[in-house]
Amino acid sequence: MTDLCSDVLKRLKGKTLVTAESITGGGIGAALTAVPGASAVYRGGIISYCDDVKHELLGVPREVLEQFGAVSRPTALAMAMGAREKLQADAAIAVTGLAGPGGDDFGNPVGTVFIAFADGNGANVRECRISGSRDAIRNQTVRIALELVLEMMK
Amino acid sequence: MTDLCSDVLKRLKGKTLVTAESITGGGIGAALTAVPGASAVYRGGIISYCDDVKHELLGVPREVLEQFGAVSRPTALAMAMGAREKLQADAAIAVTGLAGPGGDDFGNPVGTVFIAFADGNGANVRECRISGSRDAIRNQTVRIALELVLEMMK
Repeated sequence: MTDLCSDVLKRLKGKTLVTAESITGGGIGAALTAVPGASAVYRGGIISYCDDVKHELLGVPREVLEQFGAVSRPTALAMAMGAREKLQADAAIAVTGLAGPGGDDFGNPVGTVFIAFADGNGANVRECRISGSRDAIRNQTVRIALELVLEMMK
Repeated sequence: MTDLCSDVLKRLKGKTLVTAESITGGGIGAALTAVPGASAVYRGGIISYCDDVKHELLGVPREVLEQFGAVSRPTALAMAMGAREKLQADAAIAVTGLAGPGGDDFGNPVGTVFIAFADGNGANVRECRISGSRDAIRNQTVRIALELVLEMMK
């Protein structure tokens, strides 16, 4: 993971990155800041583990949370765009998903994860189905999110 | 770490907790949310890895950051109180420190960490000097922060 984080920080040199994390609870920020000098690129993030924080700090509309749920494409997109604006960065990565053991009220199975990336050109979202334990799903989400940043910053 | 996190979540049953993390970059949130059902207690947090985020999202006064530095007793206290208010929780834990390899402009050696806890009764801060690698300092900070929550919630 450290190599991947170093690659992300190198790729973003001269730019800034922020995070909005639900399912990983801070794991992306923790991984990035394990690398000395991360502060040149990484400004920080918002851990929005409940819907209130998604709405109040990241500006995810209440209607989106009610209609589509916290684990959804529009919520992930709104989280990334909200984080980028709120924390004033060039790019933002956002993750929301179900690590289990329980599912949600919207019929999403455990392992459903939405990962969104936003920059000055707009926002993209990727839907994943990750299998394995709670830990495996969360760790894999951190990895895919970092890989998405690398890909989008090419 | 999982046992300690489970203990914290059990101790806080019926109450809510939020985090404000600098040195650990999200590691406390990631540790807590590794436990299934963490959402009953843990609402989320702010990863304030730069001074701007400490000021703008957590309300740490610019004068405090300029006069005492980001790694200081008053900054840790303001982070904890700011997180509790901003994220509307019963309790907040905040960490700021130097994981190295470099020190800061205020003469703090690597391993200096301030950990603050805030609840409805006020706020407390603990100063630590932690030795070891960057990883060791960060991991130990997560552990001491969670132990402080346990102690304060007795």
